[in-house]
Amino acid sequence: MSKRFLALALGAALGGGYAASALAQAKPEVLVEQREAAMTLQAKYFYPIVFMAQGRIPYDAAIVSRNIGYLEVLTKLAWDGFQPSTADVKSKALPAVFSDPAKFKAAGENFQAEFAKLVAAAKSGNEAAVKTAVLDTNTKGCNGCHNDFRAKAQ
Amino acid sequence: MSKRFLALALGAALGGGYAASALAQAKPEVLVEQREAAMTLQAKYFYPIVFMAQGRIPYDAAIVSRNIGYLEVLTKLAWDGFQPSTADVKSKALPAVFSDPAKFKAAGENFQAEFAKLVAAAKSGNEAAVKTAVLDTNTKGCNGCHNDFRAKAQ
Repeated sequence: MSKRFLALALGAALGGGYAASALAQAKPEVLVEQREAAMTLQAKYFYPIVFMAQGRIPYDAAIVSRNIGYLEVLTKLAWDGFQPSTADVKSKALPAVFSDPAKFKAAGENFQAEFAKLVAAAKSGNEAAVKTAVLDTNTKGCNGCHNDFRAKAQ
Repeated sequence: MSKRFLALALGAALGGGYAASALAQAKPEVLVEQREAAMTLQAKYFYPIVFMAQGRIPYDAAIVSRNIGYLEVLTKLAWDGFQPSTADVKSKALPAVFSDPAKFKAAGENFQAEFAKLVAAAKSGNEAAVKTAVLDTNTKGCNGCHNDFRAKAQ
């Protein structure tokens, strides 16, 4: 096993009873890399669905179903990377993530609630309901958090 | 939606009938970022299990089950990032990925086969079987591909 993997492995991801000690040991740079990886993959699988909901590309129910299945996992993976130890690591996270953690947590829970409606819509197979839920998840969920807690792209 | 997300969204991830045209448009740098993100998250959730299988940290069945569930998705996400268009982008991928794609594909399938045994072992709930399958997945699966197709860490 390379030192690289070792460093990554000593990051978060132990969860449960180990979380506190493991997170205390995790290098802040590794935590940021891991949470950014989760964001990168959410974008990879979410934005094609947004384009479908916006009518910019054709709707494909099989891709919608596959991507939402992936996103059910991917949407869980970034949160434990926003540790106070990462506040000084260069990233797009705004200081408010760490100075107002209660508001950040509420924004995250709001995202999860919007995404849960999308998962339910996808399981119903109703294309119109999926499109509405995709757009709501994007505007109320993703952007609801990004507007207050993520630096604007240059 | 930011230009950043737009660029990401025009990457892979459309799959099916759109795959060829979407991948042809995807920026090689975005494909590399996405595949590296998938690798980063596989490390995040796999190496704690390796450490449990090696006896370096206590075995926790709940974490094993959760992480393997995440990995059932994460192990699918890197492959479409290894497009020929990315051959000249700086990364740890060795030239053999692109000069011997049949061997690379076989190494990937070998990894998937080892991982499938791990998923089956996890579903059985047999700790000894899980540990054996974790170590096999690491040595025969991950390393079987990394040895030939990934530059060694410095």
